[in-house]
Amino acid sequence: MTLIAEILAIGDELIHGALLDTNSKYIAGELERIGVVVHRFVVTSDDPAQLRAAIVDACSRADVVVATGGLGPTLDDRTRDLCAEVLGGPQWFDPASWQQIMDWMTKRGRSVPDSNRRQAMFPPGATPIANPVGTAPGFAVTIGRARLFALPGVPREMQVLLEQSVLPAVAAMPGLTPTAQHWLRILGPSEAALGDRIEPFMVPGRNPAVGITATGGLLTIRIVGTAESRAAAEAACAATAAELRPLVQQWLFAEGTLDLPELVVQRLQQRGHTLALAESCTGGLIAARLTDVPGVSAVLRGGVVAYSNDSKQALLAVPAELLQLHGAVSEPVAAAMAAGARARFAADVAIATTGIAGPDGGSPEKPVGTVCFAIATPAEQRAWTVRIANLGRTFVRDRAVFEIWRALLAT
Amino acid sequence: MTLIAEILAIGDELIHGALLDTNSKYIAGELERIGVVVHRFVVTSDDPAQLRAAIVDACSRADVVVATGGLGPTLDDRTRDLCAEVLGGPQWFDPASWQQIMDWMTKRGRSVPDSNRRQAMFPPGATPIANPVGTAPGFAVTIGRARLFALPGVPREMQVLLEQSVLPAVAAMPGLTPTAQHWLRILGPSEAALGDRIEPFMVPGRNPAVGITATGGLLTIRIVGTAESRAAAEAACAATAAELRPLVQQWLFAEGTLDLPELVVQRLQQRGHTLALAESCTGGLIAARLTDVPGVSAVLRGGVVAYSNDSKQALLAVPAELLQLHGAVSEPVAAAMAAGARARFAADVAIATTGIAGPDGGSPEKPVGTVCFAIATPAEQRAWTVRIANLGRTFVRDRAVFEIWRALLAT
Repeated sequence: MTLIAEILAIGDELIHGALLDTNSKYIAGELERIGVVVHRFVVTSDDPAQLRAAIVDACSRADVVVATGGLGPTLDDRTRDLCAEVLGGPQWFDPASWQQIMDWMTKRGRSVPDSNRRQAMFPPGATPIANPVGTAPGFAVTIGRARLFALPGVPREMQVLLEQSVLPAVAAMPGLTPTAQHWLRILGPSEAALGDRIEPFMVPGRNPAVGITATGGLLTIRIVGTAESRAAAEAACAATAAELRPLVQQWLFAEGTLDLPELVVQRLQQRGHTLALAESCTGGLIAARLTDVPGVSAVLRGGVVAYSNDSKQALLAVPAELLQLHGAVSEPVAAAMAAGARARFAADVAIATTGIAGPDGGSPEKPVGTVCFAIATPAEQRAWTVRIANLGRTFVRDRAVFEIWRALLAT
Repeated sequence: MTLIAEILAIGDELIHGALLDTNSKYIAGELERIGVVVHRFVVTSDDPAQLRAAIVDACSRADVVVATGGLGPTLDDRTRDLCAEVLGGPQWFDPASWQQIMDWMTKRGRSVPDSNRRQAMFPPGATPIANPVGTAPGFAVTIGRARLFALPGVPREMQVLLEQSVLPAVAAMPGLTPTAQHWLRILGPSEAALGDRIEPFMVPGRNPAVGITATGGLLTIRIVGTAESRAAAEAACAATAAELRPLVQQWLFAEGTLDLPELVVQRLQQRGHTLALAESCTGGLIAARLTDVPGVSAVLRGGVVAYSNDSKQALLAVPAELLQLHGAVSEPVAAAMAAGARARFAADVAIATTGIAGPDGGSPEKPVGTVCFAIATPAEQRAWTVRIANLGRTFVRDRAVFEIWRALLAT
């Protein structure tokens, strides 16, 4: 037995297509790190009947419910009201929370609209959770069998409150089972072919459990184990990984639960290498994902998004003859782009992508999904081509980015 | 009355932090466009008891349930099995679906593992939905009060099956109420200040309903109306928009439900302008979001991600004196970056960003969140500074991107 959690994301904007719920995935990852088993995410609108039902349902099934959103100052922010209604009592005003809200606003030179007072109201029996990075305080309250933690929907605020208040409170609850994870990152086979290869491991009830995840052409084998201690769970996962490794060796390119861009930055830093990018079909995606990693500026010199042939010549010194002779989507052009970026940015390592992401632009010889890559390091210059399945522009671009992560991790 | 929908996303990878569910938001948007009211998203693991409960729950509350995931060839793909179990009958093998799967794989030069046969099995009474872009067929089946549509989890495959099969089937169901939407995009005030301004419109039960969404500093006023016809619903939304416009005029910079990058590309195309980018703190985000838009190559010449001072000089011809005199995060440097990008890429319009995204790098004069922008067009050169609230690296970068969308839409 262990603690069961459900995660509740609240807001019309999430249901009606204006905003993607990224909080639930983040919260699930953090809860699982401390051994909570997450069973379900629910995303609900602000509609009072819907929200009330979602709160009651989640609190009847789980030991821990983490809710995000609906704590803002406007009238369509109803998490406080509905929790109070479910608990059958009036809300109470917390002067300390109100003081924090006023301090936070005035320190930033903002006037304090009276509507913000709503954010200092709490359901009966609730414990306020102070918000050091925004106006909306959270709260913890017991509803049904569950301890419910209500957090603001702004990701940064949610993250701070989760780490400072929620995780310590949940870790102190009785009934937690220690859990560990290990991931194997695979590029190459289809999901079915990989599944066939490791089928004996994918039986229901196995501990550690083994599953496959597919995203943008990247396959991840997830090993999740529970045991009497965290160390024992980690050892069990490591043992399963050791059994799996020989079966998938030819396709395996990274291990661990770290995000791939973080892993790339870490690896470059260890080697003391700086990086430059020359992106055509990936159009800035590689740069954007790398610059999401704090501290990347120690490694990344910069990049060029060379979308037109002219810009490949003007900014990356790709010879016009190469473009005429081989076309923009070719290994010689990719190699020249990487060499040009390496020289222009005075970087140790440079990579290049040039391909046809679609939906248009394909030809019989170079169909949509054809992407040429190159890498230039102090030790080598290499160019290669991958025919990515034409599963849409996003898929082709994502798969091309994974190809680059693999190449950078292999240098 | 109208049709009520719930959306069910299935997969351990979604619950356990390996993959973000982007399908549900997409499906909700498409369903609402044809007048279905979406009440809830549920994300569940592959665990048989959990998945079974999630299917039964959703099908007891909604008229339409769209499920994604769990249709792959491996043993942890259980949507077919659990639907059959709920319906209390054995699965049946569909030779036509099996033929399609084999054709799809062999046409791509892949061998057909026997495990793929599982994908041609269906619950009792189900209607297979052919998949022209992948191996996993979907199916439609009636469970409880609901028509359940099971689609593959791969976004591109889901989108094709949704459009070709699910939306026409739902549109033909009795009981749909015509719906329309209108969005106003706002940059400037806090959510509370905007809420105060339009409070009389935000009353529960109003038709059209008016709500506020906040994401990365961008506020969206969503107007959603229902009426006896689509045209009448659109007219009601337009009337509400006309009442709101004078209240928010000073902050309003775009209208309509189009994504902002799409709107920017459209606007540049209308003007016959090409675009170049010089990104420092946004690090390729602007390029990546623009190159997500199919057909952007007609507009975008390219961009430079100039992360280091050296690269600002070498690739964008920013004078070293400017960098020394004002620092990299300054309006003169932003202006020089934009001018350099405009010249280098021979573009009509260029934009530049340079700022401190955090978490480190701030100073008392230039705290984290300080971002300088510039735009250069045939008509003007302009640079300005925004002090973005330090709500984390992602927030600062996203807010900076919205500032650029606003600037490009205003040219």
